[in-house]
Amino acid sequence: MPLAVRFRVRYFETDQMGVVHHAVYFVWFEHLRTEYFRELGAPYGELEAGGVFFPVIESGCRYLDGARYDGEVEISGWLREPRGARVRIDYRAAQKGRVCAEGFTVHARTDASGRPGRIPPELFEKMMAAASPPGEGPGEAGS
Amino acid sequence: MPLAVRFRVRYFETDQMGVVHHAVYFVWFEHLRTEYFRELGAPYGELEAGGVFFPVIESGCRYLDGARYDGEVEISGWLREPRGARVRIDYRAAQKGRVCAEGFTVHARTDASGRPGRIPPELFEKMMAAASPPGEGPGEAGS
Amino acid sequence: MPLAVRFRVRYFETDQMGVVHHAVYFVWFEHLRTEYFRELGAPYGELEAGGVFFPVIESGCRYLDGARYDGEVEISGWLREPRGARVRIDYRAAQKGRVCAEGFTVHARTDASGRPGRIPPELFEKMMAAASPPGEGPGEAGS
Amino acid sequence: MPLAVRFRVRYFETDQMGVVHHAVYFVWFEHLRTEYFRELGAPYGELEAGGVFFPVIESGCRYLDGARYDGEVEISGWLREPRGARVRIDYRAAQKGRVCAEGFTVHARTDASGRPGRIPPELFEKMMAAASPPGEGPGEAGS
Repeated sequence: MPLAVRFRVRYFETDQMGVVHHAVYFVWFEHLRTEYFRELGAPYGELEAGGVFFPVIESGCRYLDGARYDGEVEISGWLREPRGARVRIDYRAAQKGRVCAEGFTVHARTDASGRPGRIPPELFEKMMAAASPPGEGPGEAGS
Repeated sequence: MPLAVRFRVRYFETDQMGVVHHAVYFVWFEHLRTEYFRELGAPYGELEAGGVFFPVIESGCRYLDGARYDGEVEISGWLREPRGARVRIDYRAAQKGRVCAEGFTVHARTDASGRPGRIPPELFEKMMAAASPPGEGPGEAGS
Repeated sequence: MPLAVRFRVRYFETDQMGVVHHAVYFVWFEHLRTEYFRELGAPYGELEAGGVFFPVIESGCRYLDGARYDGEVEISGWLREPRGARVRIDYRAAQKGRVCAEGFTVHARTDASGRPGRIPPELFEKMMAAASPPGEGPGEAGS
Repeated sequence: MPLAVRFRVRYFETDQMGVVHHAVYFVWFEHLRTEYFRELGAPYGELEAGGVFFPVIESGCRYLDGARYDGEVEISGWLREPRGARVRIDYRAAQKGRVCAEGFTVHARTDASGRPGRIPPELFEKMMAAASPPGEGPGEAGS
């Protein structure tokens, strides 16, 4: 089940090339991710308060067309089935029907001090239920 | 006539003190400002395309209580009557009923190369009509 | 005794106006501040580890001339005598001899949970010894 | 020929997990890239002024260990031989001998409006001469 959020590009997010800086897409992907955890019934702030962290261990993005100031962007996200203590999310950023970028992040479950741990079973089940099949959305199946 | 926007705090906007970094409030004030220009019927992107820029020439902020990740913040803005080619906006950032910060920005109308110029009369009129009186909202009257 | 740091403007720090975004100056002032604490023999990271925090409670800046990508900027800072548990620093950002901005921050000493506390006496003494007189550097005397 | 730059982590660059936010590494890689172009005798600002742009078309990063506030980081970069109008750079970020992250960016040569174009022959030659062989530094050979 993909999820999408919409918001307008901030002036701060542009650079002198006149489009959104490439690092900003990862901030937007994180914005989607926060909403995804809330949608799963496990707000990320509450997870952290309970000692469950999901730091990014890998990220990637392909940039297709620059997003522009003040235009509304739509960030869509596809959660993939967790494997052990890792989970991957694929993202697409679009503006006015144009795909601006497609990317992904991989997360490992850790505790506050960065030690790896299991994904809590209840959350694992929710993730399995919400996960999109590999062929759906951007991203390479199997990676 | 004050205007308000609401959005959730992004993880990127926090720092290791566990609250939003003080520089981020200026990004939020700018977010409100963009909506204010749209509300005036003069989207800032269109103004720039027409050679009308409003760079910040002065800014200030008092920090009262830290805004926290994922909580919704409300940014309110009070446009003040323009004086010549300058205009001031006062802002308040609040989260769950707590005032987090109050600040202001002053802008000068310039062209693309930074040369000062007049505020276009039509826009000036709209600003005069929308402006909040000095006693309303945060900010020091007369400054 | 003023202190100065020099570094080059990053591309990320520019916006579509072609100059450095106004919020970035506060990040630069913080960069100077970190060096100032180190110079005082009290690295800020060590202070935090010992429960001594100095969150920003007020900030302000006047923007005079836009700083540009890749050019070296010099940030100078003037620590003012602490008053009780508060301390003010004034800053100047310059590029190629042009003053780009002048600003200030005021800090309150707190503990990790944000409760006010005294500046540790040893640090207070170092700050008194390093402080610049009000007439030196930018900033309004007495504010 | 790899190149390296060193600077200290800024407070703004941390997030509430207490380490540097994952998006910031791309800002650091860009910092290295700017120095690389200067080292090649082709400062990026001058390239842009001459209509030669190298927007990022792909990026990726693996995060190994969190970089921390105030500690010095070293960013190393390995330019790869350009292929047609594209060029790849691999990066490593380390702090106190610990590798924090390894990443890459791929760039396409465009003009100011985003249209693809050839890498100017003189610059192409400089890049070929400076390029590191695939087996040197991080990154997958052949990707």
